[in-house]
Amino acid sequence: MTNSSSSTSRENLVHKVNFSNPRSFSTTVKSDLKETFFPDDPFRQFKNEPSAYRKAKKTVQYFLPVFEWLPQYSFKLFRYDLLAGITIACLAVPQGISYAKLANLPPILGLYSSFIPPLVYAIFGSSKDIAVGTIASASVLLGSIIEQAVSPKDNPTLYLHLVFTATFFTGVFQFALGFFRLGILVDFLSHSTIVGFMSGAATIICLQQLKGMFGLTHFTSKTDVISVLRSVFSQTHHWRWQSALAGVCFLVFLLATKHVKKKKPSLYWVSALAPMVTVVIGCLVAYFAHADKHGIQIVGHLKKGINPSSIQFLNFDPEYLPYTIKAGIMTGFLALAEGIAIARSFATMKHNQIDGNKEMVAFGMMNLVGSFTSCYLTTGPFSKTAVNYSAGCKTAMSNVVMAVCMMLTLLFIAPAFGYTPLVTLSAIIMAAMLGLIEYEEAYHIYKVDKYDFCICMSAYLGVIFLSMDVGLMISIGLSIIRALLCVARPPISNLGNVANSAMYRDIEQYPSVEKVPGVLILQLGSPIYFANCTYVRERISRWMDHEQSISESKSADIEHIILDMGGVSAIDITGIGMLTEVLKSIERKGINVLIANPKMEVMEKLMLSKLVDTIGKDSIFLSINDAVEACRFTLRSSKKGVDSKVETSDVIV
Amino acid sequence: MTNSSSSTSRENLVHKVNFSNPRSFSTTVKSDLKETFFPDDPFRQFKNEPSAYRKAKKTVQYFLPVFEWLPQYSFKLFRYDLLAGITIACLAVPQGISYAKLANLPPILGLYSSFIPPLVYAIFGSSKDIAVGTIASASVLLGSIIEQAVSPKDNPTLYLHLVFTATFFTGVFQFALGFFRLGILVDFLSHSTIVGFMSGAATIICLQQLKGMFGLTHFTSKTDVISVLRSVFSQTHHWRWQSALAGVCFLVFLLATKHVKKKKPSLYWVSALAPMVTVVIGCLVAYFAHADKHGIQIVGHLKKGINPSSIQFLNFDPEYLPYTIKAGIMTGFLALAEGIAIARSFATMKHNQIDGNKEMVAFGMMNLVGSFTSCYLTTGPFSKTAVNYSAGCKTAMSNVVMAVCMMLTLLFIAPAFGYTPLVTLSAIIMAAMLGLIEYEEAYHIYKVDKYDFCICMSAYLGVIFLSMDVGLMISIGLSIIRALLCVARPPISNLGNVANSAMYRDIEQYPSVEKVPGVLILQLGSPIYFANCTYVRERISRWMDHEQSISESKSADIEHIILDMGGVSAIDITGIGMLTEVLKSIERKGINVLIANPKMEVMEKLMLSKLVDTIGKDSIFLSINDAVEACRFTLRSSKKGVDSKVETSDVIV
Repeated sequence: MTNSSSSTSRENLVHKVNFSNPRSFSTTVKSDLKETFFPDDPFRQFKNEPSAYRKAKKTVQYFLPVFEWLPQYSFKLFRYDLLAGITIACLAVPQGISYAKLANLPPILGLYSSFIPPLVYAIFGSSKDIAVGTIASASVLLGSIIEQAVSPKDNPTLYLHLVFTATFFTGVFQFALGFFRLGILVDFLSHSTIVGFMSGAATIICLQQLKGMFGLTHFTSKTDVISVLRSVFSQTHHWRWQSALAGVCFLVFLLATKHVKKKKPSLYWVSALAPMVTVVIGCLVAYFAHADKHGIQIVGHLKKGINPSSIQFLNFDPEYLPYTIKAGIMTGFLALAEGIAIARSFATMKHNQIDGNKEMVAFGMMNLVGSFTSCYLTTGPFSKTAVNYSAGCKTAMSNVVMAVCMMLTLLFIAPAFGYTPLVTLSAIIMAAMLGLIEYEEAYHIYKVDKYDFCICMSAYLGVIFLSMDVGLMISIGLSIIRALLCVARPPISNLGNVANSAMYRDIEQYPSVEKVPGVLILQLGSPIYFANCTYVRERISRWMDHEQSISESKSADIEHIILDMGGVSAIDITGIGMLTEVLKSIERKGINVLIANPKMEVMEKLMLSKLVDTIGKDSIFLSINDAVEACRFTLRSSKKGVDSKVETSDVIV
Repeated sequence: MTNSSSSTSRENLVHKVNFSNPRSFSTTVKSDLKETFFPDDPFRQFKNEPSAYRKAKKTVQYFLPVFEWLPQYSFKLFRYDLLAGITIACLAVPQGISYAKLANLPPILGLYSSFIPPLVYAIFGSSKDIAVGTIASASVLLGSIIEQAVSPKDNPTLYLHLVFTATFFTGVFQFALGFFRLGILVDFLSHSTIVGFMSGAATIICLQQLKGMFGLTHFTSKTDVISVLRSVFSQTHHWRWQSALAGVCFLVFLLATKHVKKKKPSLYWVSALAPMVTVVIGCLVAYFAHADKHGIQIVGHLKKGINPSSIQFLNFDPEYLPYTIKAGIMTGFLALAEGIAIARSFATMKHNQIDGNKEMVAFGMMNLVGSFTSCYLTTGPFSKTAVNYSAGCKTAMSNVVMAVCMMLTLLFIAPAFGYTPLVTLSAIIMAAMLGLIEYEEAYHIYKVDKYDFCICMSAYLGVIFLSMDVGLMISIGLSIIRALLCVARPPISNLGNVANSAMYRDIEQYPSVEKVPGVLILQLGSPIYFANCTYVRERISRWMDHEQSISESKSADIEHIILDMGGVSAIDITGIGMLTEVLKSIERKGINVLIANPKMEVMEKLMLSKLVDTIGKDSIFLSINDAVEACRFTLRSSKKGVDSKVETSDVIV
């Protein structure tokens, strides 16, 4: 067989590999940056606009979504939003007071936080369903971090100022994340982490409510389950049966309304109004029965009037900065994750899209302005948003309605809520939190993915036994280790031919496939990076040993190795170095190496590093089948003994 | 077209997807653990041993490689090892003294460190080429960290004890890494990081030698380039021309011998012996010319005798623990990375394999024993190992020969080396370090991979402008971020049909491929994880928008989307949730979703999560081509208008 005929045999292969020049550096960088920071291509809607005016209008609408929906707003839509707004306002009062207590803050702050932030969100926010408010888990987390700096009992004013400062940092952090399009960071909070953390927080918060239920006055400031339970059960002589009785009644009532909603979703308003009803009943009883003289504590004096300015209270004392910054970033991160996840789920239900980075800017603005106006951390809490959605909200106007209701409350009837018994608030919190312990979801995770279950449980156990921030960080750390492990240990499988086809599949997955005699086909997993180079090398050599130990009995040596690179999405310089070494060491054993279907990014690197020239363009094929055909050709000819050596080196190497 | 005929059309597909039950939990865990911790399957060699005696023997040989080579050791091999051992001993004396000075340690410690550790390595080490010794970069790093705790000038004894303690922690850390098979951690030091760090360290060390070159007595203890240069040039009035002249002569001599070696590799011994020659000449000149009286500093008194015990000096005072542990772990990590990388490269040249985890145990033992016997951090330095290899070493016996030479030196002629002028040492270090600034490699990295170049430069600039540990950590951090980014942004490409084949390839890479009308084929990159769920969702929706905007002009709507999962190596619970949502939202638009070629791990998760039932087993195909055929079938029939709706839902959904 001569040189010319062997080269003809190559030309017979119809399918050619694309060896054109690599893309320029600027093209690849541009495309990489775009995929990293603008994966949703937010400006694609402007590109096709013809006039500059319309472009400008679209841009303003992009940054201030209020201009998108307000011009087309009609009375018909308002009727829906009005109803939804009033409903969530009824939820906002008791939730606001309760969650402020969770963060050891004056209850009035919870009401303030439901007035200004919803207005800000209505201007900047793009979600139509989110109802703005405070959330329990972030409130506790915020409190537990700031408490490390200053005790809310010894120095309540300083504590309050530090909370404003933390909220300020939350705003800056959230705004910066959105502005610099770092929404990618929030993606690192996995579903399992959130389930575990939320369930853990709910468990702890429930147990903490035993304080209010039993009417205790002294309580631990720690958030781990052991301290909390010890605090409850070491004070049995302080338990007050009046308080406990009232608490149980309220709790049963609230849980019953939740049950009603579950059975008949159209009766959502029963459970939405229930907390308000509880509070009103509680207030009335407390007022007329002078409950505070019978051992039932009440919220206490609530000042009339809307939010005072708090900008002058922001405290940047270096002594407290580590705490305020830590609290700001951690709670901000958590609030973002919850808010965006919720906005996304509800948007999906209405077939809309949510731009995560835009939402971050809106949340950031909300908390920035909030920190200037005596509010603390707000986001889009699940419970309120679900009620808003069920009540039929159409636009962010429902938040405006809620804000107006809150303003009226603050201006006229706030002091009346001062009679709310603490036990009522505890019952409200407990009822809300019991629904957040997602044991069913945890079981589902357990069934599908054991490692995800570990991540989930590490968050849960970390939160209840250590502390909220430590639990969250352990779980995020484990998630990242998992992601890194999956980069470090890509699957490398041995392929065989599916009968009567040009397909090659994993032998383990499809035991019926047939190995090609004399050819070892390995599918490399993706991507090949410094972190997995050693592994890939070891795994290839292990497959070769394995194959040789089998073939010893069958006396059919490996003559060719085909590396299927179709699944390798990227390769770095360490990876290329490893590949060069592996190829050399395999060829030294007298085995030919063929490469099938390298992707664009990989091919570019192979060409830039001149590895293509080392392997030879003749050894790179568009598909495994083409490569196998080429192998068969040389196998056949070498068996015939027709000048096999020259031929092999010519066709393959 | 009736139900039966459509089901027949499905049966015509010869290639069936494997829907058999997922592997059991224990099987997957076992396989995952094996791939993570035992990727090289170290025990495969024992499995086929028949007798228990041979198994036991193999096991002992596995843990103590000395029993593998010593029984077959012959005088013929010894001749080679003797020569190599004497050569590296000649290098060990000047290098030992110089590098100990780099770590601000008494020079005698460098000699001690070339006596005991090589003996330990000869027993536990599996590499035949490594020559044990101290390395410059780790010496400086060790010194710079311990200096933060205590000044070597003010309290040299405590400083020395802390160095022993750090070495102890290095040993424990390295041993533990190897014992728990965590070699995977060392894989996270990428080639680019090592190139950048080594070059940066070499640059700094070179500049620091200006102190010795100019005969300065006061010098900064900082390691950044600005402090070092300021220290040199602020003392121009203290520069001594005698010292500088001698230094330049020595340096030119040493570089000339390096040049000779480069031109004629067989003359390797010229450059290997050159440092020893320099030292001897330096000593003689200093002794006879009373150089110390002419402004040329000498090493000073070196005590006769072998290593004293230092086990009683280990200092576990909590005040210093943070520093000793940090120094121990960081230098240990660096020493491992260099040692193992070097052992691997030389083993590859001799076509051997090196077990990284076993090497770690050996290095750990070496440093543990070293910390008990007045040695500091040792590893397999590149220069010495290269000389050992060139000198023709055959086994670890060359280390034993070197150790014996060092013992003789310590016992009899150590004090003579006390006359070594410091400028000689500076010249030796400079000559060694100049070869380690790998600008050519950096340029190669720049050409092939710009991001790797950033990682490399961040290590380099971080080391020279900040400090060695910070530079190293920044670079490792960037490498990990890169690995995470590549998990967070997997490529998702649009495929088209390669003419006259059943192959489908990326449209961007192969512009000649043809799109299948009405069908959008997307190839998902791997793996689908919490970190990239949002991205994958956005990218799929962007491809759909893109396709729709094109098809508007051509009036051919998308009716089917085929998701090629062949490249998806793993999926987690968040990924499955995302996929479920995406499928629902696509189907809500009246578009069918088909899945092609899910891999085993993915298929298991799809089945466990019941997603297979949601999609329908009929919509999962073994190859893209099968899926396209199924699409064509329904497209054709819907064009014929024959009861298309029923048929579509029957065949596809």
